[in-house]
Amino acid sequence: MTATAGLELQPFLVERAVAAALAEDLGQAGDITTDPIVAAEARGAADIVARQTGVIAGLDLAAASFKALDGKAAFTRYVADGAKVEPGTAVARAEGKTRALLSAERVALNFLGHLSGIASLTARYVAAVKGTKARIACTRKTTPGLRAFEKYAVRAGGGVNHRFGLYDAVLVKDNHIAAAGGLAEAVTRVRTRAGHLVKVEVEVDSLAQLEEALRFPIDAVLLDNMDPATLRQAVALVDGRVPTEASGGVNLDTVGEIAASGVDLISVGALTHSAPCLDLGLDWRSPGSRSG
Amino acid sequence: MTATAGLELQPFLVERAVAAALAEDLGQAGDITTDPIVAAEARGAADIVARQTGVIAGLDLAAASFKALDGKAAFTRYVADGAKVEPGTAVARAEGKTRALLSAERVALNFLGHLSGIASLTARYVAAVKGTKARIACTRKTTPGLRAFEKYAVRAGGGVNHRFGLYDAVLVKDNHIAAAGGLAEAVTRVRTRAGHLVKVEVEVDSLAQLEEALRFPIDAVLLDNMDPATLRQAVALVDGRVPTEASGGVNLDTVGEIAASGVDLISVGALTHSAPCLDLGLDWRSPGSRSG
Amino acid sequence: MTATAGLELQPFLVERAVAAALAEDLGQAGDITTDPIVAAEARGAADIVARQTGVIAGLDLAAASFKALDGKAAFTRYVADGAKVEPGTAVARAEGKTRALLSAERVALNFLGHLSGIASLTARYVAAVKGTKARIACTRKTTPGLRAFEKYAVRAGGGVNHRFGLYDAVLVKDNHIAAAGGLAEAVTRVRTRAGHLVKVEVEVDSLAQLEEALRFPIDAVLLDNMDPATLRQAVALVDGRVPTEASGGVNLDTVGEIAASGVDLISVGALTHSAPCLDLGLDWRSPGSRSG
Amino acid sequence: MTATAGLELQPFLVERAVAAALAEDLGQAGDITTDPIVAAEARGAADIVARQTGVIAGLDLAAASFKALDGKAAFTRYVADGAKVEPGTAVARAEGKTRALLSAERVALNFLGHLSGIASLTARYVAAVKGTKARIACTRKTTPGLRAFEKYAVRAGGGVNHRFGLYDAVLVKDNHIAAAGGLAEAVTRVRTRAGHLVKVEVEVDSLAQLEEALRFPIDAVLLDNMDPATLRQAVALVDGRVPTEASGGVNLDTVGEIAASGVDLISVGALTHSAPCLDLGLDWRSPGSRSG
Amino acid sequence: MTATAGLELQPFLVERAVAAALAEDLGQAGDITTDPIVAAEARGAADIVARQTGVIAGLDLAAASFKALDGKAAFTRYVADGAKVEPGTAVARAEGKTRALLSAERVALNFLGHLSGIASLTARYVAAVKGTKARIACTRKTTPGLRAFEKYAVRAGGGVNHRFGLYDAVLVKDNHIAAAGGLAEAVTRVRTRAGHLVKVEVEVDSLAQLEEALRFPIDAVLLDNMDPATLRQAVALVDGRVPTEASGGVNLDTVGEIAASGVDLISVGALTHSAPCLDLGLDWRSPGSRSG
Amino acid sequence: MTATAGLELQPFLVERAVAAALAEDLGQAGDITTDPIVAAEARGAADIVARQTGVIAGLDLAAASFKALDGKAAFTRYVADGAKVEPGTAVARAEGKTRALLSAERVALNFLGHLSGIASLTARYVAAVKGTKARIACTRKTTPGLRAFEKYAVRAGGGVNHRFGLYDAVLVKDNHIAAAGGLAEAVTRVRTRAGHLVKVEVEVDSLAQLEEALRFPIDAVLLDNMDPATLRQAVALVDGRVPTEASGGVNLDTVGEIAASGVDLISVGALTHSAPCLDLGLDWRSPGSRSG
Repeated sequence: MTATAGLELQPFLVERAVAAALAEDLGQAGDITTDPIVAAEARGAADIVARQTGVIAGLDLAAASFKALDGKAAFTRYVADGAKVEPGTAVARAEGKTRALLSAERVALNFLGHLSGIASLTARYVAAVKGTKARIACTRKTTPGLRAFEKYAVRAGGGVNHRFGLYDAVLVKDNHIAAAGGLAEAVTRVRTRAGHLVKVEVEVDSLAQLEEALRFPIDAVLLDNMDPATLRQAVALVDGRVPTEASGGVNLDTVGEIAASGVDLISVGALTHSAPCLDLGLDWRSPGSRSG
Repeated sequence: MTATAGLELQPFLVERAVAAALAEDLGQAGDITTDPIVAAEARGAADIVARQTGVIAGLDLAAASFKALDGKAAFTRYVADGAKVEPGTAVARAEGKTRALLSAERVALNFLGHLSGIASLTARYVAAVKGTKARIACTRKTTPGLRAFEKYAVRAGGGVNHRFGLYDAVLVKDNHIAAAGGLAEAVTRVRTRAGHLVKVEVEVDSLAQLEEALRFPIDAVLLDNMDPATLRQAVALVDGRVPTEASGGVNLDTVGEIAASGVDLISVGALTHSAPCLDLGLDWRSPGSRSG
Repeated sequence: MTATAGLELQPFLVERAVAAALAEDLGQAGDITTDPIVAAEARGAADIVARQTGVIAGLDLAAASFKALDGKAAFTRYVADGAKVEPGTAVARAEGKTRALLSAERVALNFLGHLSGIASLTARYVAAVKGTKARIACTRKTTPGLRAFEKYAVRAGGGVNHRFGLYDAVLVKDNHIAAAGGLAEAVTRVRTRAGHLVKVEVEVDSLAQLEEALRFPIDAVLLDNMDPATLRQAVALVDGRVPTEASGGVNLDTVGEIAASGVDLISVGALTHSAPCLDLGLDWRSPGSRSG
Repeated sequence: MTATAGLELQPFLVERAVAAALAEDLGQAGDITTDPIVAAEARGAADIVARQTGVIAGLDLAAASFKALDGKAAFTRYVADGAKVEPGTAVARAEGKTRALLSAERVALNFLGHLSGIASLTARYVAAVKGTKARIACTRKTTPGLRAFEKYAVRAGGGVNHRFGLYDAVLVKDNHIAAAGGLAEAVTRVRTRAGHLVKVEVEVDSLAQLEEALRFPIDAVLLDNMDPATLRQAVALVDGRVPTEASGGVNLDTVGEIAASGVDLISVGALTHSAPCLDLGLDWRSPGSRSG
Repeated sequence: MTATAGLELQPFLVERAVAAALAEDLGQAGDITTDPIVAAEARGAADIVARQTGVIAGLDLAAASFKALDGKAAFTRYVADGAKVEPGTAVARAEGKTRALLSAERVALNFLGHLSGIASLTARYVAAVKGTKARIACTRKTTPGLRAFEKYAVRAGGGVNHRFGLYDAVLVKDNHIAAAGGLAEAVTRVRTRAGHLVKVEVEVDSLAQLEEALRFPIDAVLLDNMDPATLRQAVALVDGRVPTEASGGVNLDTVGEIAASGVDLISVGALTHSAPCLDLGLDWRSPGSRSG
Repeated sequence: MTATAGLELQPFLVERAVAAALAEDLGQAGDITTDPIVAAEARGAADIVARQTGVIAGLDLAAASFKALDGKAAFTRYVADGAKVEPGTAVARAEGKTRALLSAERVALNFLGHLSGIASLTARYVAAVKGTKARIACTRKTTPGLRAFEKYAVRAGGGVNHRFGLYDAVLVKDNHIAAAGGLAEAVTRVRTRAGHLVKVEVEVDSLAQLEEALRFPIDAVLLDNMDPATLRQAVALVDGRVPTEASGGVNLDTVGEIAASGVDLISVGALTHSAPCLDLGLDWRSPGSRSG
């Protein structure tokens, strides 16, 4: 069992996303630059090379992009998802029909750059809390249509996943409590309806609310927008009964101090909604030669 | 004809994207927090409020998100796409079934935040080249599945669109020229095959290459990775015969000097691949009251 | 908040399933019996009437079937999902274009009969364990393509839902333990990878295994194929630390004794894979008159 | 030409249904139990074994389920669709990646158990009319989305198919006759519109109606809810001019007497709407060893 | 019951085809001519006017095209499908947002012109056999993706439909007979497998083959590529036992003589694979004024 | 680089269209003639043979049709798309399972005949303008759903493609000019909004309008419905500044004279909306023997 065990993307999600992205880029007329210029039988090889320090995620999507246009294309991984790269690191090689490589290049890099950007930012947050018990978690603030991939990229960067959607765990927020007429009523209602394998987390924004929440059978508590001192008090108050999650006002400058409060999890929307693309390029090679 | 004329998103693209995003978030079990807590008949109102300075884009997608879950929900726009907002600016109000508002909130904000982030970053680039003739253009470095929306957001931010895909214009790059065995051969081949309404742009990275390119019937020239001094020479060399586009090494620090070279367009991948989300929140109101 | 709160089906799942079912029944030529016989402008009304004792589930799907073929059709519910009916009970009335009613009738009844069959069987199991603390749960042994609806029908019948799929909770079975080389290793691996809102249930088939399982941080235990005496011992051994679930060899004759063992849940595959259809018919009425 | 000739399922219907079922079970996160526990490279073998007497149908769907998750998985059939099995009969073996086998197991068995249940029930009806000329036919009372497979399972069990939908044959029922203002008018209208390869069956519920129907050029007659004595009279009255079909009140106790009336067909909704699942399990083996 | 009763197209087939056609024409950027030029609020009206003599078919598709882009557009039919038009006849009026009318115009006319072309050619064949008993039938030689609409257009032109596909009737051709090793074996095999509502037609190309075919229980006979004299003999030989269909070598010059042979049906592939488009144009009007 | 370079169809468009066409023809029951008659293991070979003079287009679609039903079927091309054929020319051979060949035959020929019909008609127009500089172009008057294929067929016949849709080039027509309140305003509006790689063509119907149009920065001019004498004057007036396109009243009798006027392009709607199917048949062979 290697370090990346359990990181796998489902192949049919990959294929469907790649097919949609290629259709988006090729339209009906196809690649009207490449097709008339490059002979159908021409073959080539190109390396995906990092231009920036970061963490790779999404090689399955890059591989599938090239293979979708040339079923016999070879895609050789020099590193695995989750690997750290430096400027100049060769990440993978694609070999096959030159037309397919040229036409699929942008889609492959768009996926790989986007997801590696998320993995890289996650890794920076993870590094910033090193030495504490806090794990870095993503949120539901993902790019529409790409959630499964983005949550995978967070894992590749060393983070952990929060719930995948509204359907797989309960998170009771302030508006739910207001709508129910109180925390007790809200928690009772979801506990009554939820299956026995569904966890219930409650969001609180004060120590008083936290005390109230802990009177009910909840599985986790989200400490929203508390300053580090209050977080420390909250952690003490919880005293290990349920996992504690901090959220709000988290950035690379503040995350260390938040982690030092002793919380179990820190959830960061920016991981998936604001990670800049990792700069990756495609360098064309003579087939067979490996770039430095 | 207002300033935003021609900015429209195609309704069926909007509906399809919103349906996919809601399905991604709701899964099969649906919103297992909201459904048991909130009464089916409860109604509410909430304002989308900016927490940050920026430019709004994607209100159609936010509106469609709420309406997809409550066909009779009202969505009132306080501003239009393309409007500049400050922290506290109320952007729009959604009114309808409380369940629908709560369940659609994240999808609506994910779309709106992502696209407004792109519009906002575009607007910063546009401001940075004010006083020059340069227009800011996006690229094909978009998030897979969202290209039409992201290109729209660029327009909302004051930018212009490059080609939409591989299918609607020709862009001859270095690898095409290498594959064809020379610029002359490459341009000839695409000209022979391309319809009379297809434009041909050629990428060059030196003044020598530029001179060669200008001997052929091309419609635009992409000056790749040239420093401002070289760009100025290139612009002089082109002398208005075709539009000039600069790319490579563009950021908010450099774009002003690049624009000062006299190029017609500056294309910026970061607009769509690295724009941070614009911070927007949903503030619940008593129905009828308008936030500040 | 009524007894059926939180029972709602997601409208877009309903619409998609109904559209697929109608396409399956109408093909390309459509209803070649009704179209030539019935005038386009003819209108009618018909009552869905129970021919058997049972519990209703799936009225949303029946309503959507008629409305898909006549957007202005009226669908009046005499009872709600979860209601008990007797032979002769009028369940709902559909009024609209006669062609639409005739062409959609079979699809509407196929959905309603299938789901009401599941609700009715569930209700019989629930009745059989009355007076015990045991709740009746469904499994993943559902009809392909209909899981969300069948799990809803189980709720309508008074049962509770187990996990919805492989994605929303962990259930470690014998083969997983064998593959991991032991229960400790299996639980450790899933705990390391699983998000903090994911519950872990472990299947055991002996008291020895149960004792081992309880040494680990698990959230529920599945007691597989134990006789009532062993179940009782298992419940005593667990002593309320985690919920206990019994499965295997459950039928209407045995379920009472199983429940008497004190387990929290009894999961029954037959609820969804072997429930006979509830017999429902469509009785045509003069518009406006209500059947007994 | 073997006994099962002409029983084939269309491969693209199989692939589409399996993909949808796997997506339903795997969601976006995938198999969160198996992926972290089982090594990606682990391989295994398992036999599908009958736990109950019955008739097998749907092996194509089971095979496709495993192959969808492991393209190189082997699926060896020990018996063919239509074969009778006893408790302990090994039906087929799946060999491949252990992860794929574990993750696809439930979908494979859900298809196979459901369709084998239908085939098994059909076979019991067929056995119950042995020695008569009556054939057992299914109806349009099928599970939405699975009609093509369920009709195939009926054939595997020795039954015959009625029309596949509203589009491929005419069946004039009482409400059609009422809407048209009489049997003569109804039959005339459909005859005028129907192509020359479309058959017309008319439903009658009395001998008087039967006599009227036989005056028109119809291709079959459905004798609805007649007792055996009346059926015998009806068969005599028809005297071989058109095929006779009995429906209504058919169960395993009554079908023999109904068949003895001399009707050509007996249609049974229960075959597809109320067949209990055939109990089948997956027994894990050391690769290469065959279960008894 | 009017002359066009039973001609209806299924609304969901219409909507799906129109959505696909609009997506094909609008792509991702949309109508880049109309959107910047025409104000969003502008409204207009335009008449669809025939420029040629013919028969109209497909108004549902034209209406749906405009309504897909403007949900409140009005579409007023001056004539119904099946109506004969002359140059200048106003067929229908579309009123609504000018942008929607301009953007949907081509799709609406492409559908209407194509289907009206088929109806018009069908009507010419029908006219050419007037006075005989022969009806004009279409074949499976249709444009991929449009079969349901093209078969509808044939009906609008006064023709009748042959089978809709391989699935709804049996047509035994020479290659089937060769594969089975003889006509007897072929017919026996299909009769054994086919449901009781499936008709069996056999293709013969000589009188000897016809005599053989008539020994079996077949429902129709296809007389392929026979000259009129042979057809007459064939009709005499059949003597009303089954419908006779002539095919092969049929055109507007020969169809009259073929019909005079006394056959019941003449099938013409050209109706659907070679009908020229009916010339229709969109004439813009001041709203409210009706063209000639 | 051969004569047909750049003619390629995108494989995923081909696969999707073929899958849809086969689903349309096979429905749910499949080929109810072939399946019971032909043994599953039978193999055969058949040649596609031209029965008429013409130009071939669409072999990829024919090949994909057979391969979709028999993944191991061989498809050998005797000629390439764009080749001229005479009656009796063998075009291609399909070898594989006899069932697959029989069931896919009609779909394969429907695609190939339709597209070859378009290529053949295009070739006749191209031949009719030989010796002039005029190229023959298609329009957006295509069959809904088949545009990419039909535009490909036009290229195979020697023609060129106009824009693919409303999205990839601007064509300002009379109604746009009217809506904008003048040609100047219309052109200004689209120029402001259009990207730098979008061409703008303006339609004019008089020399006066042409003179006005030429005052603006347009890329091409469409001379609509002008007689040859006027066309000549228009060409002189344009004097090579932009490409000239003639449309309206074009047929095989008039196209030569129109071309003689000196226009660069002649667009012909009939190429795609009114081309008769090319007559092609499937001749069954003993495997291995090649037809003359």
